[in-house]
Amino acid sequence: MGMSADEFRKYGQEIVDWVASYHERVGDLPVQSSVAPGEIRSMLPEAAPELPEPFEAIIEDLDRIVLPGLTHWQSPNWFAYFPGNTSYPAMLGDLVSSGLAQQGMLWSTSPATTEIESHLMDWLVDLLGLPQHWKTTESGGGVIQMSASDSTHTALVVARNQKAADHSLDDLVAYTSSQANSSVEKGARVAGYRHVRKVDVGDTFAMDMAALEATIEQDKASGLVPTFVCSVVGTTGTTAVDPVRAIGELAQREGMWHHVDAAFAGTAMICPEFRHYQDGLELADSYTFNPHKWMMVTFDFSAFYVADRRPLIETLSVLPPYLVNEASESGAVIDYRDWHVPLGRRFRALKLWFVLRTYGAQRIREIIREHIGAAQDLTSWLESDPRFEVVAPTPFSLVCFAHRGGDEATKALAKSINEAGPYLTPSLLPDGRAFIRVSIGQTSTERHHVEQLRDLIDELA
Amino acid sequence: MGMSADEFRKYGQEIVDWVASYHERVGDLPVQSSVAPGEIRSMLPEAAPELPEPFEAIIEDLDRIVLPGLTHWQSPNWFAYFPGNTSYPAMLGDLVSSGLAQQGMLWSTSPATTEIESHLMDWLVDLLGLPQHWKTTESGGGVIQMSASDSTHTALVVARNQKAADHSLDDLVAYTSSQANSSVEKGARVAGYRHVRKVDVGDTFAMDMAALEATIEQDKASGLVPTFVCSVVGTTGTTAVDPVRAIGELAQREGMWHHVDAAFAGTAMICPEFRHYQDGLELADSYTFNPHKWMMVTFDFSAFYVADRRPLIETLSVLPPYLVNEASESGAVIDYRDWHVPLGRRFRALKLWFVLRTYGAQRIREIIREHIGAAQDLTSWLESDPRFEVVAPTPFSLVCFAHRGGDEATKALAKSINEAGPYLTPSLLPDGRAFIRVSIGQTSTERHHVEQLRDLIDELA
Repeated sequence: MGMSADEFRKYGQEIVDWVASYHERVGDLPVQSSVAPGEIRSMLPEAAPELPEPFEAIIEDLDRIVLPGLTHWQSPNWFAYFPGNTSYPAMLGDLVSSGLAQQGMLWSTSPATTEIESHLMDWLVDLLGLPQHWKTTESGGGVIQMSASDSTHTALVVARNQKAADHSLDDLVAYTSSQANSSVEKGARVAGYRHVRKVDVGDTFAMDMAALEATIEQDKASGLVPTFVCSVVGTTGTTAVDPVRAIGELAQREGMWHHVDAAFAGTAMICPEFRHYQDGLELADSYTFNPHKWMMVTFDFSAFYVADRRPLIETLSVLPPYLVNEASESGAVIDYRDWHVPLGRRFRALKLWFVLRTYGAQRIREIIREHIGAAQDLTSWLESDPRFEVVAPTPFSLVCFAHRGGDEATKALAKSINEAGPYLTPSLLPDGRAFIRVSIGQTSTERHHVEQLRDLIDELA
Repeated sequence: MGMSADEFRKYGQEIVDWVASYHERVGDLPVQSSVAPGEIRSMLPEAAPELPEPFEAIIEDLDRIVLPGLTHWQSPNWFAYFPGNTSYPAMLGDLVSSGLAQQGMLWSTSPATTEIESHLMDWLVDLLGLPQHWKTTESGGGVIQMSASDSTHTALVVARNQKAADHSLDDLVAYTSSQANSSVEKGARVAGYRHVRKVDVGDTFAMDMAALEATIEQDKASGLVPTFVCSVVGTTGTTAVDPVRAIGELAQREGMWHHVDAAFAGTAMICPEFRHYQDGLELADSYTFNPHKWMMVTFDFSAFYVADRRPLIETLSVLPPYLVNEASESGAVIDYRDWHVPLGRRFRALKLWFVLRTYGAQRIREIIREHIGAAQDLTSWLESDPRFEVVAPTPFSLVCFAHRGGDEATKALAKSINEAGPYLTPSLLPDGRAFIRVSIGQTSTERHHVEQLRDLIDELA
């Protein structure tokens, strides 16, 4: 085991303490790393060690080598990209996962991994107000994937195979808005779609239905085959919300697979008052959201649901003789290897289980409401100040604004804020105009952190 | 954070202790779980908790609910499938990863995640005698993927895109032997290959070159396009070794991408005496092996190498405005999001770093030699006993044998051994004959565990 059980108890405690101390001080550190390319590597020895080193040397190197090279995603002053949360209970759930080192590829290779995962995915259906038929006890089902990229890619592959029986692979088309996450376009390319349409958006940066319909008509006229459309609830650019119901109805008319990507915003649906943003979900064929973004669950944990699990399993099941087993043959169990690309899979449900039980759903709702409330307040403040323009609605907790002084002023403001310690993301609107994304949702971000950021914006603008 | 830092210190210590105690007793438990389908789920409450529960209740449920539902992959009596290792230092490295919760999608979002990963992947090139040009400092490079399925799928996608410019996607063909892991066929289907050829094998269950060449000729005559061929070093069925050099030469002549899958056996190459099995690797375009199988690194960690990183990055790079950053634009850094399907990625290199430093390469070599030595001894014993037939060579640590009493006797023997406590895998040879796979390679499996298994075989046969 590399060390004795008692050494593990000793060093385990030291690592736990190191991690706790990290979180106690991370809010005081500048979020961005200041190292230059190559600086971290230059501290590492040329070759792997031939002989064992004392564990104390490894812990020292966490401070000496690792820490300077971190961008502090766990800082409460993290306002960049989307959050990538962790939390103490999630870490402990993940530690149990590493310790048990289960492989849940088949039910029989780890019944607990499979059944706790299925059960928790069903819990989430109720917690988030998702369609009941997505439960594993009904026609659909949920599975833990690694990232939303993996979830969306899987949906693209199943959609492709639905059409591939009657059409050339060269002719299949996938549609999403120009504001969807890059994972949709990337997933489509990976899945072999030659035609990926990034459909125009309207004033609120949501998919323009007329543009979508026109693109589809044009493609059909050219002999191409509309195959897949992705709606986004909370785009990466500005958390715009696509018209899920209208897209779902169109997808049914056109015989396309309809996938909904709520990677970030999905967690907000634990609060009933935001569920109108996911109206129409019952028309979707598949859905993904990431508890590892905003639900305090350590990466990686992307929840992927299908309305009907049969085409998923048909597409992904390959059965060699060494995997044949009684439980699978009985048909009474789920073998999750048939629900995604990898064969091996770890016990990822533990970290969500630990989070839900340690926080309780009520406390998670409070945190989400606190983040969204802080974002709404920041938006109001920016709207009331003549120096700023709020460039997109704030349905969730992403605030999008620009300096009225123009692109250079906006970019300079982003740079100066990031140099001052917090971290937010400069980006571009569809028309090319610069803006600043303030993403609020890190596990330990509280209202006063957002107020400090507001004061900093005020000071540096 | 769901709990205070001090609660985390307290419960962290309890979980560390629980994991250590699990490993202290796991060797005494029957490896297979005896629960019936649905039994674990029936112990879980109908809905997620609204209010926080005491952490003590969670720890109790690890014993009450989780433990009965485990198949004990970490038992030293694990002889099934391939091993899925963990170890104490790997768990601690993974705990740091969960605690820091870095997202290494871009160099700039976590320089340490990127640079320690690149450096360690280069270390492995030297440790395993892989071609020097696979280093990140040369034309190629290594990246951590989740599973060999992901690595192989990625290779299939890049290969497909190399041909897709000049050919219909409908005409591309992937080749592998009938004895390759199911992940090759599955990856090819996921990547949209309509034609997957499972080529016949010879007496030692290695790819039959004449059969491969004949299949390629036939496909070309039908207007199809040979695109991808996978060699396996250590097939899942019997750890057969395909003729890597001959396949590599053929791939060059035919303009095919040549991927080498050494998912299990790759770790053995840390011992120079086994490297003749990977002769010809310098002709490969890509390669994968899994430190999470036999190198004591907790899942998930699949090492994926390419000889030339350009086609990989060209295939997988999609750049939205919110990911644009100075470091990437300088070209001086690696952005690993362009090396695989997911965008998000955790700090997986830590667990390998902790393992290599805590064990040292010498100790890892000793463990591999002990496993392989024990496998050779078991093979000799089986060969010397008239009741058994060794049905395949034992190049590494997988022993394949049958009962001379016929298929039913072989299946009955496997069943009775598994009921007695250890766990091994009944499987089928290409000709349909039953055999038993004894896979030796669990982190804490020592010679005496294999000797106990031998005695059990002797008793039950």
